[in-house]
Amino acid sequence: MSREDARSDSPTALDLPMVDPLPETTQKYFDICQEKLGMVPNVLKAHAFDLDKLNAFTALYNDLMLAESGLSKLEREMIAVVVSSINRCWYCQVAHGAAVRALSGTSELGEAMVMNWRAATLDARQTAMLAFAEKITKASSETTEDDRQTLRDAGFTDRDIWDIANVVGFFNMTNRVASATAMWPNEEYHAQFR
Amino acid sequence: MSREDARSDSPTALDLPMVDPLPETTQKYFDICQEKLGMVPNVLKAHAFDLDKLNAFTALYNDLMLAESGLSKLEREMIAVVVSSINRCWYCQVAHGAAVRALSGTSELGEAMVMNWRAATLDARQTAMLAFAEKITKASSETTEDDRQTLRDAGFTDRDIWDIANVVGFFNMTNRVASATAMWPNEEYHAQFR
Amino acid sequence: MSREDARSDSPTALDLPMVDPLPETTQKYFDICQEKLGMVPNVLKAHAFDLDKLNAFTALYNDLMLAESGLSKLEREMIAVVVSSINRCWYCQVAHGAAVRALSGTSELGEAMVMNWRAATLDARQTAMLAFAEKITKASSETTEDDRQTLRDAGFTDRDIWDIANVVGFFNMTNRVASATAMWPNEEYHAQFR
Amino acid sequence: MSREDARSDSPTALDLPMVDPLPETTQKYFDICQEKLGMVPNVLKAHAFDLDKLNAFTALYNDLMLAESGLSKLEREMIAVVVSSINRCWYCQVAHGAAVRALSGTSELGEAMVMNWRAATLDARQTAMLAFAEKITKASSETTEDDRQTLRDAGFTDRDIWDIANVVGFFNMTNRVASATAMWPNEEYHAQFR
Amino acid sequence: MSREDARSDSPTALDLPMVDPLPETTQKYFDICQEKLGMVPNVLKAHAFDLDKLNAFTALYNDLMLAESGLSKLEREMIAVVVSSINRCWYCQVAHGAAVRALSGTSELGEAMVMNWRAATLDARQTAMLAFAEKITKASSETTEDDRQTLRDAGFTDRDIWDIANVVGFFNMTNRVASATAMWPNEEYHAQFR
Amino acid sequence: MSREDARSDSPTALDLPMVDPLPETTQKYFDICQEKLGMVPNVLKAHAFDLDKLNAFTALYNDLMLAESGLSKLEREMIAVVVSSINRCWYCQVAHGAAVRALSGTSELGEAMVMNWRAATLDARQTAMLAFAEKITKASSETTEDDRQTLRDAGFTDRDIWDIANVVGFFNMTNRVASATAMWPNEEYHAQFR
Repeated sequence: MSREDARSDSPTALDLPMVDPLPETTQKYFDICQEKLGMVPNVLKAHAFDLDKLNAFTALYNDLMLAESGLSKLEREMIAVVVSSINRCWYCQVAHGAAVRALSGTSELGEAMVMNWRAATLDARQTAMLAFAEKITKASSETTEDDRQTLRDAGFTDRDIWDIANVVGFFNMTNRVASATAMWPNEEYHAQFR
Repeated sequence: MSREDARSDSPTALDLPMVDPLPETTQKYFDICQEKLGMVPNVLKAHAFDLDKLNAFTALYNDLMLAESGLSKLEREMIAVVVSSINRCWYCQVAHGAAVRALSGTSELGEAMVMNWRAATLDARQTAMLAFAEKITKASSETTEDDRQTLRDAGFTDRDIWDIANVVGFFNMTNRVASATAMWPNEEYHAQFR
Repeated sequence: MSREDARSDSPTALDLPMVDPLPETTQKYFDICQEKLGMVPNVLKAHAFDLDKLNAFTALYNDLMLAESGLSKLEREMIAVVVSSINRCWYCQVAHGAAVRALSGTSELGEAMVMNWRAATLDARQTAMLAFAEKITKASSETTEDDRQTLRDAGFTDRDIWDIANVVGFFNMTNRVASATAMWPNEEYHAQFR
Repeated sequence: MSREDARSDSPTALDLPMVDPLPETTQKYFDICQEKLGMVPNVLKAHAFDLDKLNAFTALYNDLMLAESGLSKLEREMIAVVVSSINRCWYCQVAHGAAVRALSGTSELGEAMVMNWRAATLDARQTAMLAFAEKITKASSETTEDDRQTLRDAGFTDRDIWDIANVVGFFNMTNRVASATAMWPNEEYHAQFR
Repeated sequence: MSREDARSDSPTALDLPMVDPLPETTQKYFDICQEKLGMVPNVLKAHAFDLDKLNAFTALYNDLMLAESGLSKLEREMIAVVVSSINRCWYCQVAHGAAVRALSGTSELGEAMVMNWRAATLDARQTAMLAFAEKITKASSETTEDDRQTLRDAGFTDRDIWDIANVVGFFNMTNRVASATAMWPNEEYHAQFR
Repeated sequence: MSREDARSDSPTALDLPMVDPLPETTQKYFDICQEKLGMVPNVLKAHAFDLDKLNAFTALYNDLMLAESGLSKLEREMIAVVVSSINRCWYCQVAHGAAVRALSGTSELGEAMVMNWRAATLDARQTAMLAFAEKITKASSETTEDDRQTLRDAGFTDRDIWDIANVVGFFNMTNRVASATAMWPNEEYHAQFR
């Protein structure tokens, strides 16, 4: 994909214009994004050709990434970037790499999640979490009870294991959608939180 | 995982009991499943420890698999099984293999989606659709505009391409969640629609 | 391969007509198959363009799969399906999947061997056997004495190890022959022993 | 495997002594080997714990490698080595590498088949043959009619395609048996036909 | 590797102290680095336990990356990062990612080389160059004359092809040395040229 | 690549003629090669279009392969062949396979390094060394402190580990350069030291 071609109104390579005008609640949601983040993330614009799809996507996203969990928000973003790095998803590495920098306050951790998570300074808990994330991204069918027990031994509850599995799963979904549709990240992300 | 161990009350290897009692709408939904399918699919029971998660999951599932689309329900189930076969997900191959048999009226097509989709008798449209599903499951980061154009040439609209990408994505998510948690399929599926 | 094209007289995509008439012993063998199995398996018809090839193939097959062995016939068929699943051979998964269902009396075991053998309920002996079958199908050059000792520790004799290795080897041969020639399975298999 | 350990009476790491005394026909066959080749190949000794297995193996081997075929004996040995190189089988690369040197009269061709067949000087026919051998060794389930047509276009008949597929299949079998049992090649091979 | 452990005097996980004192020319070279780059790159310190090794390494590096070539310095750094990304080398992605940012004046290009080079806006020449770099990093033994001709058609001379191959080769060397020794990048790199 | 085409004056598929006449020191070096080895290795001729490149290459080569080290010259050549075998580099397997035969005095060890190093008779030290060489050739980003400790436990010093990593790295460089440029080995190698 050439970015030159991409600089059209559509946030992906597909010709799927947003509903126009957006209904009030959606417009309000986008306005809040603009205000708080300085942009409306392209993944939201990409779904906005069909509001049921946009709402189903954001409901799942918000539940997984923002709701109460034994995993911190930073940990969920670390998983997001590690999965996206294995799948080499341009959109998700850029956007969630920025989130790791924002939540951790360090550029280096964001880079390590993108480049090679084994190079990061991690405690035993986070190492176990990311090793599991890598395994079920690459070879989920080989998961055994031993893998789950390793997580429990590192301090995770069964509920935490559910959450890890679902965050890993979610980015294995969005990575493929973003790459299949050539979704490109908002330019604002690149320089954020360096 | 040993099935013997698995035959506990939990539909996965995780100890996450369902909310008890279920709220009325959820109970009604489960009752309808029981009535129409002869069971409550374990994937629903697995999510029912947290109703927000259950609702977010079913909303996305229903939108992708059951809502209006240029893809028939059978085509969406064919994609589901091909993706689940590549990822070797036990739950999803069993459950959606049954769906392919149900919707196609033939045992053979369900088996081919599980065993090797290239062995099935498919028209050019479905061949293009499944080749794309395989590619973005295995190597989404190598997707190019040529891949999308191949789908357009086979008769798919940009909206259809979005739907293919999202169904592929969705099962790349659920395959990993099911395998990571050792979710097992309801026994009823095995003999259905043979 | 389109099945439509395939529905010619030949059991493969190659134009290699059977010897006609078949010699008496071959005809008698085929008649017995028809009587006992309700069909002459296409793999036999495929070899019948050259009787030396047919006889060499059946002699080896019968010795490996039917002769006296420390492995039960069901165990040998389980190996057959696991190997064929790794190689995604349409013919062999269909035909030997039916054999697993027939010998085990359960549809579920046949499906698990096809879909993901780790999901099946297996004792330690059969787990060791199938793990070895998987390893030498995927990476035989990395076999070490430890792998053989693991089998001995699980109760297998050296003769049993020979038999496992040879059944694994045999299906790695036939999977490739069947896929390379687009051999298709007799339709009767699909519904058998469900 | 340590060769030191291996230098016992058994041609593999398994304790499966030869029938003793061998029946007259077998003994005569081994005597001919000794006379003509200067050794009894270890693959024959390895099977000789069970004469039915030895006979079934040699019948298939002789039919595939020595009987009338559109493929020359050298071409069949070239396939044998290319397959064995992909599978990194020590026994088969040593023994059949020597056969390529013997039949071609050049050390270089034998080395190229072992090291990287693309480096050899080959005509279009042999290139097509070895490309097909590589594909069905590595990814047989992806074989399509196009692959067979490429062979026909290079001058192969359908009978030749059968023979290529079966030689490829055979060495995918024996490579796994040899590696799984730590079969070692007779020392005489190493220096032959250099 | 834990970075905490790593913060010792050694730039790698190996205990190989620098020659002390450094000879005058080496000290002068390091002083120039300090002055111009604000640091002595750890890869130089890592080699400085043996001055012959340091000198051989820097001579080759300088010839490949800085000497006259049909490839611009930026192009050589782009290759460096793409290769290092495939090999997931922490040191080289960090250090040469910074170089791409410095030479291109854009953070985005450096990120794309790290994350997924196909997402970058590239002309036909650079696309051909990076596709070749990827192929010979992943599967050099499958290189054919067609691959070289594709480069010539994109405007590269035979001398340029030599240079591409050698830069690709060089980073396939250093990536492995850096990862094998747990070499870590100077902290200064992370924030540079954002 | 067809060898017929290759038999031109150039030692690779690139049109990069040697400097003519060579400067006196280079000519002297080539004369010594001719005298001692019976040939000027093509890798030297290939670099001789640019004397800075030739000198940088030979300086690094000589330091790694011939200078003082805790690794014997044979061990360094064993690593060279194992790496080149994984990468299937025609030039390097031929040339360094001959070196292993020369230094070990046995054809068998050279063949084992090419065909499957696990089949060779090795002590614990050499097994650890080659297992490390294989790992950092195939998956260097997964190297951990455990891998280095395994080498230390097998008797290697940190300096030895540096040397192993650098020899592995070097052949991962030259394998790619040789394959990318279709460098062919001097014919003399094939029959040497058999």
